[in-house]
Amino acid sequence: MPTIGLISPGAMGASVGAAALSDGKNVVWASEGRSADTHQRAESAGLRDCGTLDDLVASADIILSVCPPHDAEPVAKSVADRNFSGVFVDCNAISPMKTVKLSEQFDRFVDGGIVGGPAWRSEAGTCLYLSGIEANEIAQLFTGSPLHTQVISDDIGAASAMKMTFAAYTKGSTALLVAILGVAERYGVRETLEQQWGESFTTQTHQRVLGSSHKAWRFSGEMLEIAETFAGAELPGGFHQAAAEVFERLAVFKEGNADSLEQLLVELNKRS
Amino acid sequence: MPTIGLISPGAMGASVGAAALSDGKNVVWASEGRSADTHQRAESAGLRDCGTLDDLVASADIILSVCPPHDAEPVAKSVADRNFSGVFVDCNAISPMKTVKLSEQFDRFVDGGIVGGPAWRSEAGTCLYLSGIEANEIAQLFTGSPLHTQVISDDIGAASAMKMTFAAYTKGSTALLVAILGVAERYGVRETLEQQWGESFTTQTHQRVLGSSHKAWRFSGEMLEIAETFAGAELPGGFHQAAAEVFERLAVFKEGNADSLEQLLVELNKRS
Repeated sequence: MPTIGLISPGAMGASVGAAALSDGKNVVWASEGRSADTHQRAESAGLRDCGTLDDLVASADIILSVCPPHDAEPVAKSVADRNFSGVFVDCNAISPMKTVKLSEQFDRFVDGGIVGGPAWRSEAGTCLYLSGIEANEIAQLFTGSPLHTQVISDDIGAASAMKMTFAAYTKGSTALLVAILGVAERYGVRETLEQQWGESFTTQTHQRVLGSSHKAWRFSGEMLEIAETFAGAELPGGFHQAAAEVFERLAVFKEGNADSLEQLLVELNKRS
Repeated sequence: MPTIGLISPGAMGASVGAAALSDGKNVVWASEGRSADTHQRAESAGLRDCGTLDDLVASADIILSVCPPHDAEPVAKSVADRNFSGVFVDCNAISPMKTVKLSEQFDRFVDGGIVGGPAWRSEAGTCLYLSGIEANEIAQLFTGSPLHTQVISDDIGAASAMKMTFAAYTKGSTALLVAILGVAERYGVRETLEQQWGESFTTQTHQRVLGSSHKAWRFSGEMLEIAETFAGAELPGGFHQAAAEVFERLAVFKEGNADSLEQLLVELNKRS
């Protein structure tokens, strides 16, 4: 049975760690320097605390990196610097180019990209896309767990590209709607616009916009990764540079969603 | 009965002119320098040819400008230069700022913005949004016609803002989807992405993307107007600058929609 090191048990990571526990596998995490919330999540998920990152790298055969996009590079480097010889799996929302760059620090590397929310139940449909020559071995870790897996190809970058292009629409169109509501509000035509949209689309839009406000702080980094992904394919990165700016302005809602659309638009339309 | 001058009877304009014909009103257009197609459309719509723009400006009490966004400014100037003293109605997809600028050339000006396709049948739901102190008088021209109208306010710019914010999502999200398909194709993950999207969303997306390809040549100008509208509200214009670039690359399909998504993506992904 391989020992799996998980960096780190955030909302998503804890569910991925729990999914890997099946068949008596050992999943460890390193508590040093982590918050009480993370401790709580890791313990609930049944992960074993191995103490420090040094211990984690020394004991793990496979390391899964699940973290916000801006942490992906430092996490990979901190593991590579400790001469990790197992399989490093980057599961983060980063561009294919950045993934290729990270992979060059490792002898054994698998590219991953997660589509969906935390994978506590199979019905949630959360899928870990994987690519790389050892992708099948990583997929097998999750057999029978609530986390679905799909191997795309041997190419490092493919799983990242899948994640980037999927989020490009879900989160990109949400950011576009936020901006549109802000523009309509500024010109005094939001009510007219919402009448033209109709009740169903308007209600749905308000729910999407409000529901994403507490996640905006971490979406902005992901949007910049998507912009880079587009630029790497010689298509315009402007959609997601704009989306990053929109989410950046909503980062104040990190502790909880905006109470009302009006509150959200006031924040959005504050001049910086 | 007022005489209405229509500039110009394109696919949309001809339907607006026809809608204004009710109750025995007189709708004139100027054929000088126009194509055989435009002649055909104007005749089918029942509009009277008054010959030249000089004649149109001299005989009309109201002038409706319905043209591609990049023509809105030259059309308004050509009318203002002829000392038109009636009501000039700009119905075009231009930014509120540009509309305000155009209005300064006229004593009597109404801002208009059309949402929907050509208004041949009431069920199409096409709506002419209007703003300005004489907006109600213009709305009344279309009573009982297939073209719906809605007066927003006395503010020049409001109808334009309504048009811009509505098209910002419909056309902006289409451009985003085109770009995403192009990026996914480049990285070799389009099939995987479409599986994750599911059949219904994928089919719908292909239809939207292909169906808009023959209109892309005129959408790019509109996208730049929307980008300006966003910037005027101190929100990022990048979404629609990117959308303009995407539609620009599809301008080759002016004579007819792309036959297949593959053909469209080859064109999109050609390096300029």
